[in-house]
Amino acid sequence: MARKHFETAVLLLDCPDQPGLVARVSGLLFELGANILHADQHQDHELGLFFMRVEWTAASVPASSSQTDAADFSRLVAAFRAVFTPLATSLNMRWQLRLTGQRPRVALFCSQYLHCAADLMDRVRSGELPCQVALILSNHRNVEPLAAFHGIPFHHIPVAPETRAQAESTQLRLLTEHQVELLVLARYMQILSPAFVAAYPSAIINVHHSFLPAFIGARPYHAAHQRGVKLIGATSHYVTTALDDGPIIEQDVARISHRDQVEDLVARGRDLERVVLARAVAWHLDHRILSFSNKTVVFD
Amino acid sequence: MARKHFETAVLLLDCPDQPGLVARVSGLLFELGANILHADQHQDHELGLFFMRVEWTAASVPASSSQTDAADFSRLVAAFRAVFTPLATSLNMRWQLRLTGQRPRVALFCSQYLHCAADLMDRVRSGELPCQVALILSNHRNVEPLAAFHGIPFHHIPVAPETRAQAESTQLRLLTEHQVELLVLARYMQILSPAFVAAYPSAIINVHHSFLPAFIGARPYHAAHQRGVKLIGATSHYVTTALDDGPIIEQDVARISHRDQVEDLVARGRDLERVVLARAVAWHLDHRILSFSNKTVVFD
Amino acid sequence: MARKHFETAVLLLDCPDQPGLVARVSGLLFELGANILHADQHQDHELGLFFMRVEWTAASVPASSSQTDAADFSRLVAAFRAVFTPLATSLNMRWQLRLTGQRPRVALFCSQYLHCAADLMDRVRSGELPCQVALILSNHRNVEPLAAFHGIPFHHIPVAPETRAQAESTQLRLLTEHQVELLVLARYMQILSPAFVAAYPSAIINVHHSFLPAFIGARPYHAAHQRGVKLIGATSHYVTTALDDGPIIEQDVARISHRDQVEDLVARGRDLERVVLARAVAWHLDHRILSFSNKTVVFD
Amino acid sequence: MARKHFETAVLLLDCPDQPGLVARVSGLLFELGANILHADQHQDHELGLFFMRVEWTAASVPASSSQTDAADFSRLVAAFRAVFTPLATSLNMRWQLRLTGQRPRVALFCSQYLHCAADLMDRVRSGELPCQVALILSNHRNVEPLAAFHGIPFHHIPVAPETRAQAESTQLRLLTEHQVELLVLARYMQILSPAFVAAYPSAIINVHHSFLPAFIGARPYHAAHQRGVKLIGATSHYVTTALDDGPIIEQDVARISHRDQVEDLVARGRDLERVVLARAVAWHLDHRILSFSNKTVVFD
Repeated sequence: MARKHFETAVLLLDCPDQPGLVARVSGLLFELGANILHADQHQDHELGLFFMRVEWTAASVPASSSQTDAADFSRLVAAFRAVFTPLATSLNMRWQLRLTGQRPRVALFCSQYLHCAADLMDRVRSGELPCQVALILSNHRNVEPLAAFHGIPFHHIPVAPETRAQAESTQLRLLTEHQVELLVLARYMQILSPAFVAAYPSAIINVHHSFLPAFIGARPYHAAHQRGVKLIGATSHYVTTALDDGPIIEQDVARISHRDQVEDLVARGRDLERVVLARAVAWHLDHRILSFSNKTVVFD
Repeated sequence: MARKHFETAVLLLDCPDQPGLVARVSGLLFELGANILHADQHQDHELGLFFMRVEWTAASVPASSSQTDAADFSRLVAAFRAVFTPLATSLNMRWQLRLTGQRPRVALFCSQYLHCAADLMDRVRSGELPCQVALILSNHRNVEPLAAFHGIPFHHIPVAPETRAQAESTQLRLLTEHQVELLVLARYMQILSPAFVAAYPSAIINVHHSFLPAFIGARPYHAAHQRGVKLIGATSHYVTTALDDGPIIEQDVARISHRDQVEDLVARGRDLERVVLARAVAWHLDHRILSFSNKTVVFD
Repeated sequence: MARKHFETAVLLLDCPDQPGLVARVSGLLFELGANILHADQHQDHELGLFFMRVEWTAASVPASSSQTDAADFSRLVAAFRAVFTPLATSLNMRWQLRLTGQRPRVALFCSQYLHCAADLMDRVRSGELPCQVALILSNHRNVEPLAAFHGIPFHHIPVAPETRAQAESTQLRLLTEHQVELLVLARYMQILSPAFVAAYPSAIINVHHSFLPAFIGARPYHAAHQRGVKLIGATSHYVTTALDDGPIIEQDVARISHRDQVEDLVARGRDLERVVLARAVAWHLDHRILSFSNKTVVFD
Repeated sequence: MARKHFETAVLLLDCPDQPGLVARVSGLLFELGANILHADQHQDHELGLFFMRVEWTAASVPASSSQTDAADFSRLVAAFRAVFTPLATSLNMRWQLRLTGQRPRVALFCSQYLHCAADLMDRVRSGELPCQVALILSNHRNVEPLAAFHGIPFHHIPVAPETRAQAESTQLRLLTEHQVELLVLARYMQILSPAFVAAYPSAIINVHHSFLPAFIGARPYHAAHQRGVKLIGATSHYVTTALDDGPIIEQDVARISHRDQVEDLVARGRDLERVVLARAVAWHLDHRILSFSNKTVVFD
């Protein structure tokens, strides 16, 4: 899973299952002179679906990585698109081809709790997350100094029940202006309208501070304390129109005891929220995730 | 937490909180010539409750452990009961004093899946669990050879909706005859009536094959697969009249992926069920658990 | 990973890496009329090695699974061997083809601690582990009743420094007689000679009661207690001639605290040992493991 | 474990074990009118040592928290010191009394990798860690903007073999000037001299990027990759003069697979390092840790 020092392409696809799919895709890449660096498949036998992720590059690479190679790689990508498009259509595939040299533009949404946003920005700063944070949107002002430190445009957009529609309209305009591809809700405490969610299918990642489906909704740490659970959790998921019910990307848990009060759960939970959200964002940026039937395939 | 090679007593108590409780209990033991081996307290500040577990022995021990010491210890226990009883009453305490040399009599309930029952019996055989399995009750016959191997009386008690009352009556009679103190439902798939449960308060331990409160009820692995969770869990708890809602004793989880089908979840879950149930039984036998307000305090 | 209800074949291979390997193998299977149920690849870029596991069946399956299908499958397997053998030779492959309907014959080695052996036998009994335990060998007698209960031949072979050579010679004869393919050292506390180990390359699985490479050798729980670690571990690995240094298959850990004495570590460790060894055996029986360079690839 | 909204005192002590210690300490507090909020004890039976942590406050609290209460509390603390000091001497105790309202002054040491330092500063900023970061010292300059953002004095102190003595002398002068009580080595990659370490006994916390005692020394992720382990770890510990061998405070692990290259281990390890170091600092600041015999007691 280590990052390559030369350009690669990731093909991510799903389609109705049938014999020969691996052979066709890998055969086509071989004929074009591509070298498969990593391939992974999955079949859902119940639903009869096939999923595949193939990371590939020009066969000459990584012998050298001169400008010539870059041009070769571009030609290879164009050639692949030309021959793969009709094949994909004939096999009823949904597919995307992403070049790992491109760094997607991301918007961070946050509210008053900044641990997730601060953590993500530090991971981008250090090069751990291959993306550009194009802008930060919050219904609170306290993230402003952090945004300034990282040199990221910040917009304060208060949200109240009667202004939600207008706030979302402003948000959508800014997202379009900044050509944002991925929205990360880093403990953003406002609910998004179905129309807003529909504008970014499988492109809004949220972190919920419980082990879903336990403790859906508000104040999950209070609910966990009330129930007397021995582990607390956090869940990152794609946002759909059903509250806290989108496809789960990652979950993790931490052990607690009878000594832990609600404040302790909140404190422990912050570490879960940070890592569970960061992993989801990293995997999305690595083009490892396919959604189907309200679940995710996460290729490793 | 290691088991002692000489006899000890465990005092387990809870009462309304007030200053000086630790001082009174520890002072009384000191005056009687007892030596505290381990003491642990907990306060629930919301409810104003105090919980304590003290393991103690005669102060002369462990210098030697001759018969004289055993007699000394018995006298000390009697003296403790005499002076502690009025104090406990005046402080409105619920309390119990257990001698670790006594091995509680346990009944195992199981149905067709025997992994938990087989695991528990092996732990008793090897001395890991300090109890006697007094009898095994099942609505299936397949546990019979295992019971015979371990030399444990087995009773086959089929249960059908129309015979449940009679089956429970037979079970209760057997439990009384065998002087059973603890019931362990080792994947016993029948629901117990409120009257049955009321006969053994905080003395029936069940294992549920999900991370409660997620996936209450039947077929939790199917529900987990359907929801697309990334971790599955198991929960051991005391049985109350509310289905899968008693005080949680222990929980654990295991990571799964999109590759895992329901059968895989079932297989992975077996390991969780085994350890989560075994830990709960071990802690109960070590007198580490206090229940209150549908939660547990588990002293470590 | 769920077990199929019809017969499948698993091809497991490794060879020097080169472009087109996935295309060739998957293409060949497609042409023969095989259906890939699951395929996984791995490349070690440092060493220039390619690893692959493909599980496949006849393309008509699982529509039905009549006797006709079984005959079809046998013909397909024979056809595959015929065409794949020269290809594999030309690509310098090491490979094996295993039919999942065949249950490998396993020998259990144990000494006085029986928790791992008892656990494995119960997993075989319940159908969780698809193998036959052909015989049990121990330098102690206490496993005998358990072996008898499971109907497994038991041989008591005492080992002392001066009789080791003769004991191993007896063991090897029994293993040959019983056509054993896999040896599982379930807390077998004797060291095997290099000659013995060489007779079963990548076919002897051991469990070591520490998180290797920490605490190699005898009494690892004592060493862990002495060092004051906060987690203890267990490791399953293939046995090589270097003590506790073979390719690691699986590891797991459990949290401990300052309260835990050596006996507590031993007790907690038993649960780690059981699952870590059981997983390794399960993966070996599923033909998921390839060894190279003193490491393992474990396909999931 | 939740933080209190009124002032409390933490008494942390250890001494040779003898009967009656809990009774004496708790009795003394009761007589003075103190209310025990939490008490925990531990006995090391091998070494005959007794350890105790008691958190207490004035008995009237938390009914109100006016200025009067603050004065009452100060008088109580003074009274406690007066009566406890001779008792402690007579029992051969090492002890400290810390007021939770005081925020210890901390120095962060770092080198080029800033994930731990950035994480700790964010936890201090958000109030999660009750301390003041008095200054940041690094042999690299890249932390400077982060220090400026948080308003923390930064000193760049390059270290080379021939200048180490002078660098340490500068560091020690700065630590004294800033009245630093705790040093946190947040991936500081320089070795400290024995004399430097001796100046801050049990007051220098380091994070080592392996599961100690495995992979002591430089490049532990390379060593872990080479050995083929299935879990990687991180360890926080007090620094002593023996390299990577001080008393372990906390450890944690993460699962890896054959797919993970050294760079992946480094990336996964960052999350372990962050939490393992942050927990150690939090527990130290909560006065939960006692060191003895190259181990720690960490009260929970």
